[in-house]
Amino acid sequence: MINIAILGYGTVGSGVVEVIKTNQSSIDKRAGKHINIKHVLDLRKFPGDPVEEILTDNVEDILNDDEVKIIVEVMGGVEPAYTYVKRALLSGKSVVTSNKELVAKHGAELLQIAKEKNINFLFEASVGGGIPIIRPLNQSLTADEIYEITGILNGTTNYILSKMADEGRSFEDVLKEAQDKGYAERDPRADVEGYDACRKIAILSSLAFGMQVDYEDIYTEGITKITKKDMEYAEKLGCSIKLLATSKKIDHRIFARVSPVMIDKEHPLATVNGVFNAIFIKGNVIGDVMFYGKGAGKLPTASAVVADIVDAVKHLNRNIVSFWSTEKMSLMDLKDVTTQYFVKIHYENFEKARKEVENLFGPIDIIQLDKKDQEFAFITPEESEGTLQEKIFTLKEKDDITEVGSLIRIER
Amino acid sequence: MINIAILGYGTVGSGVVEVIKTNQSSIDKRAGKHINIKHVLDLRKFPGDPVEEILTDNVEDILNDDEVKIIVEVMGGVEPAYTYVKRALLSGKSVVTSNKELVAKHGAELLQIAKEKNINFLFEASVGGGIPIIRPLNQSLTADEIYEITGILNGTTNYILSKMADEGRSFEDVLKEAQDKGYAERDPRADVEGYDACRKIAILSSLAFGMQVDYEDIYTEGITKITKKDMEYAEKLGCSIKLLATSKKIDHRIFARVSPVMIDKEHPLATVNGVFNAIFIKGNVIGDVMFYGKGAGKLPTASAVVADIVDAVKHLNRNIVSFWSTEKMSLMDLKDVTTQYFVKIHYENFEKARKEVENLFGPIDIIQLDKKDQEFAFITPEESEGTLQEKIFTLKEKDDITEVGSLIRIER
Repeated sequence: MINIAILGYGTVGSGVVEVIKTNQSSIDKRAGKHINIKHVLDLRKFPGDPVEEILTDNVEDILNDDEVKIIVEVMGGVEPAYTYVKRALLSGKSVVTSNKELVAKHGAELLQIAKEKNINFLFEASVGGGIPIIRPLNQSLTADEIYEITGILNGTTNYILSKMADEGRSFEDVLKEAQDKGYAERDPRADVEGYDACRKIAILSSLAFGMQVDYEDIYTEGITKITKKDMEYAEKLGCSIKLLATSKKIDHRIFARVSPVMIDKEHPLATVNGVFNAIFIKGNVIGDVMFYGKGAGKLPTASAVVADIVDAVKHLNRNIVSFWSTEKMSLMDLKDVTTQYFVKIHYENFEKARKEVENLFGPIDIIQLDKKDQEFAFITPEESEGTLQEKIFTLKEKDDITEVGSLIRIER
Repeated sequence: MINIAILGYGTVGSGVVEVIKTNQSSIDKRAGKHINIKHVLDLRKFPGDPVEEILTDNVEDILNDDEVKIIVEVMGGVEPAYTYVKRALLSGKSVVTSNKELVAKHGAELLQIAKEKNINFLFEASVGGGIPIIRPLNQSLTADEIYEITGILNGTTNYILSKMADEGRSFEDVLKEAQDKGYAERDPRADVEGYDACRKIAILSSLAFGMQVDYEDIYTEGITKITKKDMEYAEKLGCSIKLLATSKKIDHRIFARVSPVMIDKEHPLATVNGVFNAIFIKGNVIGDVMFYGKGAGKLPTASAVVADIVDAVKHLNRNIVSFWSTEKMSLMDLKDVTTQYFVKIHYENFEKARKEVENLFGPIDIIQLDKKDQEFAFITPEESEGTLQEKIFTLKEKDDITEVGSLIRIER
């Protein structure tokens, strides 16, 4: 038998208890030992709940209990999670967490402590919810040099974009519905501004490239400015609009970005809809692989946490090696990365506006939904973001251009 | 340093050499040791090839070399691979293989020997080429009771079906082109009759359900009867036709089948096109997950083989547990499994034919491409395959029905 303790009895914590109870016998068989939940930490009371008897509001009961070998941290947020997890590791307890803020911020250090102590710090659930991605990155893609990771890493924004595309509704309208249904938070910024996806791609990049990628360094743009009309243009171009978190190796340098992208419908990520997440990886020998599943939710996330618990039991005093050094990776300046933009132009005189655009960008294909709108769109040639932004700035100054809008990156 | 030997210098074998050379330093870092290819077994000579110096045509040079700790079997076929692999394992050498015939037939026994010897028998590349699926099944989905695995497991047939759908061409036409391009074998039966997919789903089912699933017991139907017209009907129904290998748990019993299926275009498997493979898994807590990538090809397959070599190095004298007992699983009779069929009817008198169909199946929706063809299609209600087949047999006897065709299973 092995004793574990769970820090936090919220959605994921109660999911972990439920998953262990539901599949106890097969989980014990896989782990090779009976897994016993000895303590659950939460400041709240849960009268009548099965965990009532093992509930404590004092973390010392857990950290000082020598019988507890594995701690499951599912509180979220950097503090006090960081303090508890670090103390647990230093005292020789393995830690499993679903906490992306903690992992993005302190993953390298906590992995290092686990290595020194010959125990484990595991965080499969911190990215992609139930989707196996951390373990495949560490253990399955070991023959490859990875040069691209691109993911749909946030279910809320993918749900909103899917609904906007399918039902021709506005961002605000779908967001409100998602909030009413409980799919989106009352304060939706962490999702819709891309902050959540940013932390997750920081974790994946750090693991894939072996150095610390600070999430603060990653250019992050949300989906709040995407309009119904953008969706119509995307459809016309044979594209879907997705919030993509991406990280690429270009000539031994790394760049990372979170932003909406118009992506060709033939791309495997384009058909990932609703609350599903997917992570697309390119390796120099394996080619393209993709991992797809529920990126959030009580039971899928708990499934990943429990799979980590099983691994921690199987490797009680044996560190599972991963390569993520504390050395900081300096990312490429976004300005130096080439891309193509989808750009919308409002005009009073079509021919004059077109001429201004072509003076800057060369010959363009005009994409137009309805002439009455006095608006057309075009796709820029592939140039560095710096050059493109300068040209767009120049365009905005022109008298014959009433307005320049959208600026969505496009990959076809 | 660790010495390995490769049995077979064909497509996969030369791919393994290439992958190790290409990514030697990162692979060595992941493995924690320098990986040295000491021998390559092949009856052919390769003058001028880098492996010329380490080439042998005598397997005894390898099996009797105590310095060789890991053997990579990439010859294919059951014999002599089975004899060599068994001898290697019995003499304490770990084995990595890409050989689906060997694994489907003798996997349980070879895993058992590896376990007794505290070494490893690894076969990630035997299913899904480069796609990580065996390791995720064994190590990532450990919190779940798996109740369905459905895969596109054969790239050649998926390429053919994708081309037929996209270009409105016949099976024979696309097959010939695939053969000319080298995508399909001169004798294409292993692919187009579903035998290859059958062995792969046997391996996945055995691992997911923990008992020996014999591939000979799996109902297997190929794609040779799929017509251009079937593709048109599928399109009209909002479906793709895919060769699906599936295995499901129904009330504690397992059924498995390989057959073409009309699958709703919204299903993640429906958009897996060309030579790509994908494996879709349902677990009782994780929900739906899918793994996508190149199912074949020199480098993707070699990538999976080399990832197994790295794992074998990391676990030299430590068995990685997997659950696949030699106990035989008796599969459900296909006749007892419920499904829906897409059925095509030729008639002389529409109303009479429709009446015959409705007498047997109840009210149906008529699907018709062109009245001039004197043909319509319908979808049966969900019933056991046994009942459906009896009804179809009865229908064929009716005077007002000229011909009953297609009978493609449909999942919407």
